[in-house]
Order: sequence, then C-alpha cells, then structure tokens
Amino acid sequence: MNKSLPQDSVGLVSPQLIHFDEELALRSGKVLQGFDLMVETYGKLNADKSNAVLICHALSGDHHAAGYHSEEDSKPGWWESCIGPGKPIDTDRFFVVSLNNLGGCAGSTGPISENPQTGTFYGPDFPVVTVRDWVKSQVMLMDKLGIQQWAAVVGGSLGGMQVLRWAISYPERLHHAVCIAAAPKLSAQNIAFNEVARHSIISDPNFHDGRYLEHQTSPKQGLMLARMVGHITYLSDNAMRSKFGKTVGDFEASGSNFGRDLRSGKLSFGFNVDFQVESYLHYQGERFSENFDANTYLLMTKALDYFDPSVDFDGDLSKAFANSSCKFMLVSFSTDWRFPPERSRELVNDLLKAGREVTYVEIEADEGHDAFLLPIPRYMNAFSAYMNRVFRENCSNAT
Amino acid sequence: MNKSLPQDSVGLVSPQLIHFDEELALRSGKVLQGFDLMVETYGKLNADKSNAVLICHALSGDHHAAGYHSEEDSKPGWWESCIGPGKPIDTDRFFVVSLNNLGGCAGSTGPISENPQTGTFYGPDFPVVTVRDWVKSQVMLMDKLGIQQWAAVVGGSLGGMQVLRWAISYPERLHHAVCIAAAPKLSAQNIAFNEVARHSIISDPNFHDGRYLEHQTSPKQGLMLARMVGHITYLSDNAMRSKFGKTVGDFEASGSNFGRDLRSGKLSFGFNVDFQVESYLHYQGERFSENFDANTYLLMTKALDYFDPSVDFDGDLSKAFANSSCKFMLVSFSTDWRFPPERSRELVNDLLKAGREVTYVEIEADEGHDAFLLPIPRYMNAFSAYMNRVFRENCSNAT
Repeated sequence: MNKSLPQDSVGLVSPQLIHFDEELALRSGKVLQGFDLMVETYGKLNADKSNAVLICHALSGDHHAAGYHSEEDSKPGWWESCIGPGKPIDTDRFFVVSLNNLGGCAGSTGPISENPQTGTFYGPDFPVVTVRDWVKSQVMLMDKLGIQQWAAVVGGSLGGMQVLRWAISYPERLHHAVCIAAAPKLSAQNIAFNEVARHSIISDPNFHDGRYLEHQTSPKQGLMLARMVGHITYLSDNAMRSKFGKTVGDFEASGSNFGRDLRSGKLSFGFNVDFQVESYLHYQGERFSENFDANTYLLMTKALDYFDPSVDFDGDLSKAFANSSCKFMLVSFSTDWRFPPERSRELVNDLLKAGREVTYVEIEADEGHDAFLLPIPRYMNAFSAYMNRVFRENCSNAT
Repeated sequence: MNKSLPQDSVGLVSPQLIHFDEELALRSGKVLQGFDLMVETYGKLNADKSNAVLICHALSGDHHAAGYHSEEDSKPGWWESCIGPGKPIDTDRFFVVSLNNLGGCAGSTGPISENPQTGTFYGPDFPVVTVRDWVKSQVMLMDKLGIQQWAAVVGGSLGGMQVLRWAISYPERLHHAVCIAAAPKLSAQNIAFNEVARHSIISDPNFHDGRYLEHQTSPKQGLMLARMVGHITYLSDNAMRSKFGKTVGDFEASGSNFGRDLRSGKLSFGFNVDFQVESYLHYQGERFSENFDANTYLLMTKALDYFDPSVDFDGDLSKAFANSSCKFMLVSFSTDWRFPPERSRELVNDLLKAGREVTYVEIEADEGHDAFLLPIPRYMNAFSAYMNRVFRENCSNAT
C-alpha cells in the first residue's frame, strides 16, 4: 500500500478531530465554550507514555506535519524533512503529536467554523488568540491523550514561540524545549511587515469587515499581497539571487546576475511581469490565497506581534525562565533576516542567566528563514543528535 | 523677507517649467513629441559656466530639492540637509540644477499631463521611461541652459543610478560623479519588493487600468500599501527599534523593547493598530497616497528594476566604465539593507578595474537607506570635503 510513497516517510496518515467540552478562557478576556482541535499523530506511544513529542506550527502551518493523506498526494506534510523513520524526530522512537492551532483554518475551531451563538461562521467574531492561549489548549490536548510530560516540545518560527511559552508556563510538563528559527519577541520591523499584510487584507473590498464568507467571496487580492510580502521575508537576498539567477537572458552576466533572470528573455516596457522573481511571487501568492483563510491570517499575525513573555517580568526575559526546568535546544540560520541568529543569541544569554541548560546551533545556510523547513545536512545532524539525547534521557523504555 | 527662514537655507525659491520642442526617442522604442521639465536652480552660474551641479532625484523625489516655496512652507526641499550656503553642495559656490524627471508628477511631463494625441491625461499611456531616457533629457536640459560640462552630477538611491548612467553614456559632459546609497543594479529581493508595491496599486479596484483620473478617483489604498512596504525598506531594523521604542507602556523593558511601544498603552485584542510603528506606517502611507500619482509610482519602480548598465557589456560592469573620464565619489551607509555597503564595494571594484579614480566612504549610521537624506556629521564632512575638491579642481574662477 505504501509502495509508491518514500520509505523514509510515515506514509499514509489520517487526521482526527478531537472535541473539548470544557471552557477555554482566553487572554483577551473572552471565553470559548468548547472547541475542536484537528490532530495528527505519527509513531506509537510507549507503555509509560514517555516518548511523546509535540509539534507546534508556524503562521501558515497546520496539523499535517508529515506523511501523505492519500497515495495521490503530490506533497507530504510541511515538516516531512524532520519527521519520519530515521529522521531527526524519529517516528520509530517517538510518538509525535501535531495539531492545527485554535483560530486556524484546517479543521480546528476558527473563523471558518460555525459560531454556536449565531449559527453562521465565526468570521471576524472569532476572538484574537495568543501564543499563551494556544499552549493552554495544547495542555488540554495532552491531558486528553493521557500524556503527563512531553519528551520534547518542538517548533520553528511562531512554533518556536509556543515552545518558549511551554517552558515558561508549564515547566513540569516537558523535558526538552526545541526552539528553531524563532525570537523571544518581534521587533518593530517584523510588526511593520505584519501590519502591511493585515492592511492589505482589510483594505480589500472583498473583505467585507471579515464577513466575506456570508458574501460568498474572499479577499483574495489582499491575501495574495500579504503572502507576497511574507514570502520575501522568508527568503534571503542570497537565496533569491541563486533561485532566480541561474539562466541568462537579456541580462547575461559574467558572474552572478543577482537573480535578475527574465521571464521571457526581454523587457516588456510595460507593467507586466518582467523578472522570474515576480512571476514566482505571483504564483506563491495566488496559490496561498486559494487555500488559506484571511481571518486566520490576521489572527496568526497578531499572535506573532503580541508574543513577548518578558512583559510579565518587567521586561527581563531571564526572569521568565527562572522556574523552567526543561533543557533547551536553540537553532538559528545565518541568512534568516526575519529572526536572525542575533535574536537566538540574546535568548541563549537570557537562558544562561536564568541558569538553564542550553544547546545552541547556528547553521550556515543561504535559504533564509525558510531554512528551518529544509533538510540541510548540518541542521539534520545537530537536530538528530539532540533528539537522540532526548530519547536516551527521557524515554524510560529506551533500548 | 527671509527673516523667518533658516540662515543656512537657499531661502525662497521658484520652480520654472522649461519646454522642449524636440523629439525624445525612448529606450522602449516609443517617441515623446516634445515635453516639459519642471526645474529649480539655486546659486549663480559663474561666467565660464564651470560651477554647475546637477541633482538627480530618487523614487518619490522631485525638482524641489532645497529652500522654501513660500514663507508659510512648513518643510523645505527634500535635500535641504545637503544643499545651501555652507552645506556640502554649497550654493555660495555652485549653481545647482534640480529637475523633476520625465514621468514624474510634480510638473514635468508625465502620466498626469495632457496627452496631446488624446486631449486627456496620459495616464497608463505614458511610456515606460528608463534611467537612460532621463539622462538623455537631462543632457537636453543642460544644452538649453548653455552648460557644457557639469562640475558634478550628484544623486542618491535611484538618483545615484542616474549618476552612473551619466558617467557611462556622456563621459565628456561631467567632471565628477557623486553616487550615494545606490547600487549598479537591483537584486531579486529589491525587484520583489517593487513588484509587491506595483501589484498593490494595480489590484486596487480604483486603479481602473491606470485611468483613475478619468474616473475621478485614485487607487489610494494601493498606493498607501506600496508606500508602507517601501518605507519599511528605507528604514533599518535598528532605526525602527529606537524610533518606536523610546517610551514604555504595557511592554516596559529593562533594556530595549525592540521598538514595541504601544499606541494606547495596552493591547487591543482586535485588528486595530496596537503598536506605534503601525500607526506611523499608516500615517506615512496615507500622506503619500494623497500627494503622489500611482502611475508615476509604477514608472519609477520599473526604472529602478530595469537599470543595469552591465547589460550592454556582457555583464561586466567594469567595461561599462572603460570610457568614463570623470572622477567618482561613492557613499554607502552601514545599516542600509536596500542598497548595502557591499553593493557599493562591488561598484568600487569595477571602477578600479576600469582604471577610474574613486573616493569611497562608508558611513556608520543607524538610519538605513534614508540616511542619505540626513545631516549625519561624518557624512556631511566627507561630502563637503569632496565638493570642495570639485570646486577647487573644476571651477576655473575659484578664489
């Protein structure tokens, strides 16, 4: 049955919807009366439930982190590079839990779900959720799964922020925190890019104050623009130069042409797409705008902006980790200008100041922020080595 | 009369519209049958016409580079920091010529001008103009002014690209080329940001395929978004951190709060503006969208994208400067990530390879690309010293 799927994949997987009857009091003061989480699991939970690993997703991610939903699927889950048999998060050893966060648009309760109070879509009435709220819902999920402690909580980017929140708010519920390509809070520049994305969505005439589903439409242009801006920030200048500067056209160059490949070999002298990079951005933006919910995009960017665990500790992040008891692995990538290595180093310093044990790896990679999704050898080796240690130290029936 | 205006300003100035009857054949193959250029001049042309300096403007600039149009003017011209008595471009010594480029929206022939063939606005029918076309029109301007050689051609950003084109295409018409915060061609990342800006304008429902003036409307939202994206790239992450991280609110921090100042002291838990940086971007975007023409913005960004003088020399930029005879000054700014120092250093290398004389200054400054507009002491000193040399060497009646 799996013969057409890669051997190092978890293969065919099925998501499951888990319902929670309990109330969830959110940071905003609002309360969700029950909710659903869409979840996938890979690997087997061992007898003493010591081998569970939680995956936290980033802005546009979801529960489908690894494997395929059908043999016809052209693409696997978003973190196939890191989750599977023999991979860093080795599904022959770990029981991996991956969920779509609240406010998402891939099955968990969010803006496209029915609002029980109105009988129609939540839309813009879905409350603003924070990283803290997500982690709270993830605790409820682990309780429902009967897991007392995660061997590790793992995430990249916005997922890495959830990892930090776990270590701060639920120190007794995890052994290891693996925080990749993240930062302890956004800078003004990061927030500015998010605001451009939000404004492009909100100012799209098809947004209808967020009630576009009732209007049977979608702010596609706004969402496309938001994704185009985002995409530029996920790639490095270097990555773009090599991605769009391979062939030669009108701009034949002896050395690098700085990613200036032309789409049709000559300039249009109009406002059409001239360069390959423009064409690529359009494609990425269009594809995304067909598959993602605009209200969810707004929610995810606000969660990013709001995250700053130092707020409760007079701005001193090291104090936030005073009660953490897990061990930490941090990874950053040299050309990630969205969350540059400098931000991870600050975090390392604060963790050390708090007396925590930290393993920090800075990976040389041209791929920018997106590097965390890619099977870069040094990254895979370091990640695997750390997860081996997680297994050895914490999974009591380890062989 | 000038008593209310600063002593180191050129004071009150008046633009003048200069008409050209001659045809201008453009790089696109199209031909302009006559055109107007809006021009300002500061200082006095000396007897042998050896003290003339040309100023080339950047994306959103115009002819009004220095001084005030009335005593009530709250703001002077865009390069007031560098042009005036005793300033780097000293109007007690130099005769300074500044123009609005073709395709602009400040008086020179462009999309908001009347198209003689239709009797209505050019709008989207105004041809795509390139840096080469602009410099060609600037040569016609200097001929009309009776100037044989510029003592210097000076410009920052897109203006610096015009300076390079002068040195390559009209070597005998200038003594010095002063190219500030520029690059010999855009990289894929630069082009990508420009394409986001263009797409936001073009996808605004009020754009009407560029014929918004006939529809008595304007793609203001699109232009606002374009400017917001642009503005982020003009500032450095550092500059934003200090600009928006001065006070303390909900996010009181012991050290830097990374520019996370809140607008109202607390989070909105909605999609309103929460952070000062968002509010600032909105303000900048709105103000710009009320004062700038969308078709001009499209034209200017395409001129930026298309510029690559190495194209005519098999991609080898050093060959482009083989016939240049002027001397060069290049300036870059440490936190300019739009045109980083690395790009200026490449240019220095190519100029040296071509046997040209180059003075290169790299200025430590937190302000990003916008630094070229600011009176940063080391920048002013280096710029003044170089312009003193220009005066000594080239203005034959120098005292």
